[in-house]
Amino acid sequence: MMTGQQYKESLNDGRATYFAGRRVIDFDEVPAFSTPRGHIADSYDLFYRPEPDAVNPMFQAPESKDELRDRIPQLMALDEVTYLTYQCQMTLTTAASRLRSVAPEMTARIDRYVADARRRDIRMVECITDAKGHRGRRPQDQDDQDAYVRVVERRDDGIVVRGAKLHITGTPLAHELLVMPTKAMKPGEEDYAVAFAVPMSAPGLMSVSTSFHPTGHPADYPVSGRLSLPDSFVIFDDVFVPYERVFLDGQTSSAAVFAHSLGLWERLGGTSLMVQQADEIAGLAQLIAEANGVDGYGHVREKIAELTMHATLLRAGLEAALANAERSEDGFYFPSELYTNAARYLAAAGFSAAVQKLQDIAGGSVATVPSMLDLDNPDVGPFVEKYMSTSTEVSGRYRVQLFHAIKDLTADKYGGWWHVVNLHSGGGLYAQRLITRKHYDMTRAKALARRVAGLPDEG
Amino acid sequence: MMTGQQYKESLNDGRATYFAGRRVIDFDEVPAFSTPRGHIADSYDLFYRPEPDAVNPMFQAPESKDELRDRIPQLMALDEVTYLTYQCQMTLTTAASRLRSVAPEMTARIDRYVADARRRDIRMVECITDAKGHRGRRPQDQDDQDAYVRVVERRDDGIVVRGAKLHITGTPLAHELLVMPTKAMKPGEEDYAVAFAVPMSAPGLMSVSTSFHPTGHPADYPVSGRLSLPDSFVIFDDVFVPYERVFLDGQTSSAAVFAHSLGLWERLGGTSLMVQQADEIAGLAQLIAEANGVDGYGHVREKIAELTMHATLLRAGLEAALANAERSEDGFYFPSELYTNAARYLAAAGFSAAVQKLQDIAGGSVATVPSMLDLDNPDVGPFVEKYMSTSTEVSGRYRVQLFHAIKDLTADKYGGWWHVVNLHSGGGLYAQRLITRKHYDMTRAKALARRVAGLPDEG
Amino acid sequence: MMTGQQYKESLNDGRATYFAGRRVIDFDEVPAFSTPRGHIADSYDLFYRPEPDAVNPMFQAPESKDELRDRIPQLMALDEVTYLTYQCQMTLTTAASRLRSVAPEMTARIDRYVADARRRDIRMVECITDAKGHRGRRPQDQDDQDAYVRVVERRDDGIVVRGAKLHITGTPLAHELLVMPTKAMKPGEEDYAVAFAVPMSAPGLMSVSTSFHPTGHPADYPVSGRLSLPDSFVIFDDVFVPYERVFLDGQTSSAAVFAHSLGLWERLGGTSLMVQQADEIAGLAQLIAEANGVDGYGHVREKIAELTMHATLLRAGLEAALANAERSEDGFYFPSELYTNAARYLAAAGFSAAVQKLQDIAGGSVATVPSMLDLDNPDVGPFVEKYMSTSTEVSGRYRVQLFHAIKDLTADKYGGWWHVVNLHSGGGLYAQRLITRKHYDMTRAKALARRVAGLPDEG
Amino acid sequence: MMTGQQYKESLNDGRATYFAGRRVIDFDEVPAFSTPRGHIADSYDLFYRPEPDAVNPMFQAPESKDELRDRIPQLMALDEVTYLTYQCQMTLTTAASRLRSVAPEMTARIDRYVADARRRDIRMVECITDAKGHRGRRPQDQDDQDAYVRVVERRDDGIVVRGAKLHITGTPLAHELLVMPTKAMKPGEEDYAVAFAVPMSAPGLMSVSTSFHPTGHPADYPVSGRLSLPDSFVIFDDVFVPYERVFLDGQTSSAAVFAHSLGLWERLGGTSLMVQQADEIAGLAQLIAEANGVDGYGHVREKIAELTMHATLLRAGLEAALANAERSEDGFYFPSELYTNAARYLAAAGFSAAVQKLQDIAGGSVATVPSMLDLDNPDVGPFVEKYMSTSTEVSGRYRVQLFHAIKDLTADKYGGWWHVVNLHSGGGLYAQRLITRKHYDMTRAKALARRVAGLPDEG
Repeated sequence: MMTGQQYKESLNDGRATYFAGRRVIDFDEVPAFSTPRGHIADSYDLFYRPEPDAVNPMFQAPESKDELRDRIPQLMALDEVTYLTYQCQMTLTTAASRLRSVAPEMTARIDRYVADARRRDIRMVECITDAKGHRGRRPQDQDDQDAYVRVVERRDDGIVVRGAKLHITGTPLAHELLVMPTKAMKPGEEDYAVAFAVPMSAPGLMSVSTSFHPTGHPADYPVSGRLSLPDSFVIFDDVFVPYERVFLDGQTSSAAVFAHSLGLWERLGGTSLMVQQADEIAGLAQLIAEANGVDGYGHVREKIAELTMHATLLRAGLEAALANAERSEDGFYFPSELYTNAARYLAAAGFSAAVQKLQDIAGGSVATVPSMLDLDNPDVGPFVEKYMSTSTEVSGRYRVQLFHAIKDLTADKYGGWWHVVNLHSGGGLYAQRLITRKHYDMTRAKALARRVAGLPDEG
Repeated sequence: MMTGQQYKESLNDGRATYFAGRRVIDFDEVPAFSTPRGHIADSYDLFYRPEPDAVNPMFQAPESKDELRDRIPQLMALDEVTYLTYQCQMTLTTAASRLRSVAPEMTARIDRYVADARRRDIRMVECITDAKGHRGRRPQDQDDQDAYVRVVERRDDGIVVRGAKLHITGTPLAHELLVMPTKAMKPGEEDYAVAFAVPMSAPGLMSVSTSFHPTGHPADYPVSGRLSLPDSFVIFDDVFVPYERVFLDGQTSSAAVFAHSLGLWERLGGTSLMVQQADEIAGLAQLIAEANGVDGYGHVREKIAELTMHATLLRAGLEAALANAERSEDGFYFPSELYTNAARYLAAAGFSAAVQKLQDIAGGSVATVPSMLDLDNPDVGPFVEKYMSTSTEVSGRYRVQLFHAIKDLTADKYGGWWHVVNLHSGGGLYAQRLITRKHYDMTRAKALARRVAGLPDEG
Repeated sequence: MMTGQQYKESLNDGRATYFAGRRVIDFDEVPAFSTPRGHIADSYDLFYRPEPDAVNPMFQAPESKDELRDRIPQLMALDEVTYLTYQCQMTLTTAASRLRSVAPEMTARIDRYVADARRRDIRMVECITDAKGHRGRRPQDQDDQDAYVRVVERRDDGIVVRGAKLHITGTPLAHELLVMPTKAMKPGEEDYAVAFAVPMSAPGLMSVSTSFHPTGHPADYPVSGRLSLPDSFVIFDDVFVPYERVFLDGQTSSAAVFAHSLGLWERLGGTSLMVQQADEIAGLAQLIAEANGVDGYGHVREKIAELTMHATLLRAGLEAALANAERSEDGFYFPSELYTNAARYLAAAGFSAAVQKLQDIAGGSVATVPSMLDLDNPDVGPFVEKYMSTSTEVSGRYRVQLFHAIKDLTADKYGGWWHVVNLHSGGGLYAQRLITRKHYDMTRAKALARRVAGLPDEG
Repeated sequence: MMTGQQYKESLNDGRATYFAGRRVIDFDEVPAFSTPRGHIADSYDLFYRPEPDAVNPMFQAPESKDELRDRIPQLMALDEVTYLTYQCQMTLTTAASRLRSVAPEMTARIDRYVADARRRDIRMVECITDAKGHRGRRPQDQDDQDAYVRVVERRDDGIVVRGAKLHITGTPLAHELLVMPTKAMKPGEEDYAVAFAVPMSAPGLMSVSTSFHPTGHPADYPVSGRLSLPDSFVIFDDVFVPYERVFLDGQTSSAAVFAHSLGLWERLGGTSLMVQQADEIAGLAQLIAEANGVDGYGHVREKIAELTMHATLLRAGLEAALANAERSEDGFYFPSELYTNAARYLAAAGFSAAVQKLQDIAGGSVATVPSMLDLDNPDVGPFVEKYMSTSTEVSGRYRVQLFHAIKDLTADKYGGWWHVVNLHSGGGLYAQRLITRKHYDMTRAKALARRVAGLPDEG
């Protein structure tokens, strides 16, 4: 296992990492990289054990409903890259099991790779969304054949891949990428049916990152100042991957296995996060209502009641997903897809409205609150304190801090990022509706409807 | 125990029952009464056992989560008055337990009454909503002091009550009424803090019923032709109640115990019914879309996906309520109030929108479909068959029947009744929002919010 | 011109009219027919002038924006069949103008027909929606070739038509039907490109009517007891139409002209009615809130404010449609299609939510209010009066009447009919959204967007 | 009149302006100040005429409906501070007219002040929102008596004021502030009933500004890089105001005149801006859908249709407000308050949902699009170009620019600011609903409702 310090040093491996138009050599110069790197290092130190065969106990598939329920909050209390590593390993484990009958050699490769990754104590993130080109065309019908990642050469010892993957979280801070097809492939699309693992330092691999890490003073960004993780645009400029790291190569009928396996684990984490976010929004609404002296107003109480209703319905979805968790053939538990998806959809679809209610209760200072630096200025600070206070019980500083939290979460760079990510992380509202429809027991609903209409049963 | 036939005869007890402006002596002349009476008689026959000490096994409090989960569908498969009797008995059992420390003589009376009611195998319905007068005034501040049911005289052997109860389901078909205060009472309102059981044949007790039982041909009303139950306006014109049937008399601080106990059981049944209704609506939407040949249209698939999403979120609420069921001190289980309420609210708030989607998919024939009698008319019937058919696979008669089911459920007398009842049966949307707010763990949400804002914990 | 009495007699022309499974010979026996017949007769008497060349002045195309604005309320104050006659004549006038260049003989026929119809002072209704069969197939690809009305034979003196038209308002009370294609036709569909006028008494023409006319006591139905008009399923069993009444016969490229012309006039009337309905709902909400004593409650005031907001936005759409009215080549004015459609869509999409608010404010008595007959019963009437009163200022009878109005309008047969008709009368929400999109100036919006993005103008 | 250069120099008047914790002496060092200053200077140059008595023709009250309609787009094409100056002068003109009968000396002062302000060609912004303290208490019941701006001393030649005003747009770039009470005042609150004009350089006046001006590269911020204007927290630390600039002093019954006059003009501009914003959002949605190749997808077309519906309903509100414009006693025209408010409410309430649709169509690149600087980097730029292109017709650069526009407008600092400002600029959704309710003709609606219910007219 690695210590935090060893982890930090391990990132100096020659990777081609770009940010704001320039290549980043020294991560210390880019707070958007160095801040989350510190959190990941802390997680390393938390679990470090010096024994040579030690592995991190968090990276185990849950073997009971209770383990499934407990693992998520444990992981969510750590940094996000550690969570993503768990997600990648669960995805690989699930895919390995599903490939056993159709491609046993791939199952063996995956099992070896995962065991090795645990032994090396590396961190991984998944790459799924392709550049895609024109959305209405198949990969091979694109004006540019590289719009989806593909194999451009097959050698004796490995493959050469070309293409790009978008919206990839955390690449500069991970050791390896788990790359998989973004969707199902058809016969004739063999070159696009490719999944593999690749180190960030592989020749030809470049990542261009963006970040919602604040550019203003950290004191004005209580949330994003701590939490940010870069998003990357990852380029595969003819990258070589040896066969022991290739997990799918031309098996078009299995192309969707990886994305589907990822979906199982990704949705649970995403939904858990959104449920917590809904509680935070309800709590912030109550705190700012009290600070403003409006918590007793009828219309404010109604809005807060609606926020608690939203949070409760979301949590009900998660509870139902866990109460109806299913057992895989390999003996580990995964959450009900029907309820996980429904909760996730409600979270995505309802986020804007919840934010609107919070901002409506809080007032215009969400947009115009002075900086914490103004509060510290000797000329104007005392006046900001005086006039942002609402009574002897509510100090100006306390209220200014609340406004910065609400601003950061909902009305600034990070809030904007959340709006988009909540909408799109599960594939967009349209896809999520259709997935719920797919898992819904329509046969039963139609039988109920026939009975209501006095029509005979079908068949 | 009674047989169905004995039950029917038992209703001829001189009760003062009015319908459409006239007193009803012979129930056979009023289909709105005789139809549901038949269903109740069937339930009697189903459970009848001739042993002298036999009691109906359905009227037992659930002693495990599984029993709680199973009892509801079992009861819902029977008639609604049997369900209401269960609800009354669970309410009394729960209230008895809560009154033990403050009014032990009431607990003893209730226990005796419930045991006797089971022995007599009677059917009961609850009376809760008062006439209320001006909503903004307390009972004793009303222009008419009788706006809430009250004790107008206390005798040696019992009390005399006056007032009215509204929206009472099924009174003409029950043997006794369980009457309780509609809300909490304050000191000085002792005469309004009264709960009791009373037979329908008591002198001074009158009920004025309405019904959504169809007046058209039953073939055009596949749902309401089977299911209707009268709603009643119940008048207490100085009705005498002996003390052994009085369960609360002047204990203002306990006035809300009965309504609260009722709420626990009433909401579970109501929510279960609404979840099933949501599945029926999704099923009908799919059937009519297929019959119209539009099930492949994108916008139709979207609407059906939204209906399945709604049904799934409702069911998630019910699943969460059962997974988080609580155990009473007396050892029986009741559903989580937080999740039951949230699901109920979603059902009530979302019903109109779900109906709108179903009607949008189905088309204008929901309003204008010819009668089944027209289909049977030798002149025009063959043309209705011909032109209501949409292909050789979908007959005109099948489609006409589907339209009548949708019309009956959503766009006629019964559908209108459902809209109102779904909204109001839990006390209205406003009350339901506030109840969810009350049970929501705001202390935890505020702590989360403080952590997000970087503020110290309270205290 | 005809008097009301002459009108009534003119309907005894042998027409084949069916209702509830039976042929109707004597309209007096069917209140669903005789009630609206009385209102139409009243309109005849109102405008009757004995001069031989007299014509009704209401049936004139508006020659200024002010006339356009004033005509609608004038017509809406009359009966609905007179309004539909206006609509038919405006549709024909508009279509005649548009056909002039492509089919001048049709223009001439229409002009002669309209002049003659005015001279005869007849009432007309339009027939547009076909049976349609499978929605995903063209007319000639249906399993039954008659799913759309078509010409089955062409004779020297006229055509023979077969098919059915659905959702036709008021046929038993009109003299003639104006029949037109439900949608655009393509080459090869010449037999379906047919428009004509036909008397109700034509051999082979049958109409099967339904109605929301109440079956209960009229006193409980203050709205539908007055307003109902039958909807009909109209069958053309090889009906002969002489050429002077045929306005389109095989000109597929002009098939949509009639539906489009109708749309112009139909939408304005429909939207005007919906705006008034929205005001009525706001007014009823305020009246019942006052009667219940809750008009000062915060959440009730919010709901009423939302109802006034909805009514105001609807009226804004109508105002914008009139302020932006366009002048046809023939010199008459018609409302802006963009704004009329948008208002209509908002009305249709928002009706359910508005009704839900009204019902939420009013309370459960919308479903369970006793009959006016119960109020008149000497035994129970005084108690219904006593307990439905909410203060000395608000009598029980007044409040019972309000509840019956709300029930009739929103929660009974007529309310259900309105829900469906509001949704579908403009072609369904989906169609209305697309029509607004079609009329919206997207070129301008794209130019604005390019400017915002700092992109050069297109071109 | 001043030239642009003279305007720039005129701001160096010793004003106490703070930003990000520091006093700003040189505006050139703060792009958030210097960028908008440049735009204002451009407007000065545009209208500059050297004649000594020249005044800017834009600052005239509209004397016809057409002038009212035309002035807004003319002003909106200029910079926002010039627009705010117009708004201040119209507010003063309106208030002067309303004060004539109750405080004629104030009318005279205002008239003199406005004439002088035009002669000096100054720019002004209004200050209305107070610090407010605890929202549930009157000004004199606050723990801090200065929570609302008040007169703390009255001298022979003027008054001394203390307090703060929040959410003030553009103060560092204006010459004078127009200060007015935030709400109606009651007897006993004379010290809070104060309105006046004051130069930014007045001793004791300090402004603390924030800004959504981007901190990243301007190329990534096509909208906010051009448009930003600082918001300020304005402190009155015992500021002296001579009587000729005091427009209200103790006349509590007239305290609301200024806010109400401001509202008339402020809402029209705000609504016009929001209508244009809705068109921009529809246009951007169409452009990005085309660039992504999804403009033909059913669900995308539906969403765009909904965006055009929203934009059309907003514009209908504006059209109705202009078509129903009213004439003041002084002969100028102002828009209908009923319709202006309703449109504004719809804009505020619907903004989040519109943004959600745009982001849903656009995809995750709204959050993760690489910087324009990355596009210009020689290593990775060609790959960003290659993979952001979707076909030979749609270049990567074009699409990246579109994403930056959408991000800037909806998902970054400026977008967050807009969410809050749209909600709050009219006083919040709650206040806007109530204002519409106030202007709605409820008497008419109740009369309609009575007619529907068959109840006699009131009175």
